[in-house]
Amino acid sequence: MTLPRSGVPAPKLFDTDLNPNILKAKYAVRGRIPAKAEELRKQLIKDPGSLPFKKIINANIGNPQQLDQKPLTFYRRVLALLEDPELIENEEIVNCFPSDVVLRAKKILDATGSVGAYSHSQGVPYVCQSIANYISRRDGYPSNPEDIFLTAGASTAVKYIIDLLSLGPKTGFLIPIPQYPLYTATIALNNTHALPYYLNEDDDWSIDSSELIRVIEDAIAQGIKPRCLVVINPGNPTGAVLKKDSIVKLLDVAAKYGTFIIADEVYQENVYKGEFISVKKVLRELQATDKTGYYDNVQMASLHSTSKGLSGECGQRGGYMELVGINSSVKTQLTKLTSISLCGPVISQALMSLMVNPPKPGEPSYELDHQQRQKVFNDLSTRAHTLYTAFNEMEGVSCRNPMGAMYCFPRFDLPGGAFKAAEKAGLSPDVFYCERLLLETGICTVAGSGFGQAPETWHVRTTFLPPGTDWINYWKVFHADFMKKYR
Amino acid sequence: MTLPRSGVPAPKLFDTDLNPNILKAKYAVRGRIPAKAEELRKQLIKDPGSLPFKKIINANIGNPQQLDQKPLTFYRRVLALLEDPELIENEEIVNCFPSDVVLRAKKILDATGSVGAYSHSQGVPYVCQSIANYISRRDGYPSNPEDIFLTAGASTAVKYIIDLLSLGPKTGFLIPIPQYPLYTATIALNNTHALPYYLNEDDDWSIDSSELIRVIEDAIAQGIKPRCLVVINPGNPTGAVLKKDSIVKLLDVAAKYGTFIIADEVYQENVYKGEFISVKKVLRELQATDKTGYYDNVQMASLHSTSKGLSGECGQRGGYMELVGINSSVKTQLTKLTSISLCGPVISQALMSLMVNPPKPGEPSYELDHQQRQKVFNDLSTRAHTLYTAFNEMEGVSCRNPMGAMYCFPRFDLPGGAFKAAEKAGLSPDVFYCERLLLETGICTVAGSGFGQAPETWHVRTTFLPPGTDWINYWKVFHADFMKKYR
Repeated sequence: MTLPRSGVPAPKLFDTDLNPNILKAKYAVRGRIPAKAEELRKQLIKDPGSLPFKKIINANIGNPQQLDQKPLTFYRRVLALLEDPELIENEEIVNCFPSDVVLRAKKILDATGSVGAYSHSQGVPYVCQSIANYISRRDGYPSNPEDIFLTAGASTAVKYIIDLLSLGPKTGFLIPIPQYPLYTATIALNNTHALPYYLNEDDDWSIDSSELIRVIEDAIAQGIKPRCLVVINPGNPTGAVLKKDSIVKLLDVAAKYGTFIIADEVYQENVYKGEFISVKKVLRELQATDKTGYYDNVQMASLHSTSKGLSGECGQRGGYMELVGINSSVKTQLTKLTSISLCGPVISQALMSLMVNPPKPGEPSYELDHQQRQKVFNDLSTRAHTLYTAFNEMEGVSCRNPMGAMYCFPRFDLPGGAFKAAEKAGLSPDVFYCERLLLETGICTVAGSGFGQAPETWHVRTTFLPPGTDWINYWKVFHADFMKKYR
Repeated sequence: MTLPRSGVPAPKLFDTDLNPNILKAKYAVRGRIPAKAEELRKQLIKDPGSLPFKKIINANIGNPQQLDQKPLTFYRRVLALLEDPELIENEEIVNCFPSDVVLRAKKILDATGSVGAYSHSQGVPYVCQSIANYISRRDGYPSNPEDIFLTAGASTAVKYIIDLLSLGPKTGFLIPIPQYPLYTATIALNNTHALPYYLNEDDDWSIDSSELIRVIEDAIAQGIKPRCLVVINPGNPTGAVLKKDSIVKLLDVAAKYGTFIIADEVYQENVYKGEFISVKKVLRELQATDKTGYYDNVQMASLHSTSKGLSGECGQRGGYMELVGINSSVKTQLTKLTSISLCGPVISQALMSLMVNPPKPGEPSYELDHQQRQKVFNDLSTRAHTLYTAFNEMEGVSCRNPMGAMYCFPRFDLPGGAFKAAEKAGLSPDVFYCERLLLETGICTVAGSGFGQAPETWHVRTTFLPPGTDWINYWKVFHADFMKKYR
């Protein structure tokens, strides 16, 4: 039987024919301003003199190796040997490498086999074990390799957990405001509810119990079940590092209401002031001291990534999550979900094993590795401080001291004229500011509305990754002109 | 404000508290039989003499490098230089590499920058261009790099398209039976409908128009909109290669009903008999000859992967999709969706660029690369034939000649006693057969019910990847015993 080729063929799809959850989802980090920047970049290639600046300065995304950050040599040497194990057989080549590089590569190859083979969906057992060892050292409490899942960046882990906990529109996810837009986007994709809780900007973006309880009780009153609580520490976009008492508040709420905690701890190495304390460590302390078993049912996933820290290996897409306190029937479902995607990139799993177990003092690669890490850390720390100082010198701008992560999230008190001009352009005032900044200086940032902000406050997220300080000076000049123009 | 630590803490989640779509989803390739095999593998390590076989033979998954397939040297040399570009600066090392390896690595580094940086969400433009060139050569019709999206394996591309087209439970996806379970799993995750159409086993698993129309009209009568039609060519698990007339039938249906085509063409290099013709090529031919514009609205995505073919680089997670005939507003939504996951692994994008542009005759790496490809091809082709012959010699077994992919999908007419024993064990007859096969020989396969099969027919999917022929002999002996026992 053949179908007669006659009649009117069916029309093509338009966006309105697509999954409405996808239409709703927003992702500002690669949204309007970065898209405009990409156009300008192409224009500069075609016609270099046509704009008031020579290049685009990408301060919109935490992508260190797009800018001047070099990869750590130790990592890359081991990865090269994993990609081409025949190099290990070649004496001339292998003599060019420090012996610990070769040893590590052999160890990983023994454990993994070819990086071209699918691994277990949960990850290579050797890598899971390395991660568990790292977490045990970090927290002083044991970690079980069976609870570790390797993922393609932490984003994939976030997606797994949010998908797993989504039971339709009556499901609520508490997310900090400001937040990383992956969360609102993934919640929108699941047609569930974001339940925004505001961080306290005036107290270095700390967490208030009363705010968490307000949000939870409001949600319950509206028939929405708060099933999960997201915390980002160190903060994106805030650059804040949570103190222990903020973490205790989260855990109290999780214990009382049974909200699963997603602890997005991908910036745990990026701490310039204060100290990173993992949510799991505080949980274990509370469990150890509270004899009533009040915290025994707390369930959480802690996420980490090769993309941030001192590694900055974003393009490799490495990440893990550690599950804590999960029932085995829940783990079975998660394992099935991950198995549908087969496995995370195996080379990125190997990279993760290096990240959690870098060269130790006395090993041949240690000195260089240590120097390189110090340089990355110092560069980030210095630029964070320079940027922070610059913002606080600008008229109408206030910025919390960036203690961690890769971002400043300054607040802008804009003049009346800017509101009018923004309205005329059909933009919110913060987007208007970012667009003017881009068009006049080439600096690409993301407006606060992409992350959420308290009503009637306006922010901009900038990374402190672009090299040098010239661009900070351009920003200062732009800002002074902007304030003058729109006063 | 602090929360009083009193009262009963909230209970933990059970699987019944999770997303019901995840509970429903099944993924047999890593399901019951492979899970049992993993247990046995661990038992063999602890107690090698405790089972009637010495090792597990993984014929359940198309994972060539887990078995004896070696990675192609050219690929891995280039990837090693991309992971550690400092090697290019080292004269001693660089002299060990053929010059085209070094040139290619430099070219990719120029185009990509560090493989540790996020790329554009759609992929590195240079890689998109290489793929478009490949498709243009393959089909004789132009391909536009703007229509290429790099993904983490083809699985991620499948997920993007199915997510995009899912508008709740009234959405239908036509899937071939048997199918690769990624499709039913992803459809279940979206709470949409799989609309199974049966392939014609007796005619080498060809496609019937009447079957497609029956399924579509039935769905429409039930209020389900058939929005998408999946075709897997070469077939998984069937090993079939579609003839042009089967593809024309698909396109006729797509034109008439406006069903988006997912052309899963990841096995396009694995063709041992017949010829691979891409769905896009047939579409372009029809569009060129039909002057009425009947095919002008056909929309499709063609998927490819670094995991299969002669590359077998599963663990690297490389893939692409080419969009054809899509409205720009739809592409905008897809771009947003991909941007939420940031980008595919950049090293796997580079690998994809090598796969679509291997060394050419006359280039220094050509001879070795060509020999290695020939060996992989011949090994696959020989084992396919050996397995096919073995099955057709077994009592009650019939198997179509595997023309492509990496699988045989023989049909088993099982004796009455097997049905009774299966019922007693609470298993379907095919799962019972696979479990006995595993327990007695260590051969791990997947039962036909994991892929779907015509009612009252029973199949087993086996890859033809495990090396040697011993395992095929074990299977023969097992089968003869099984038939005797359950006659």
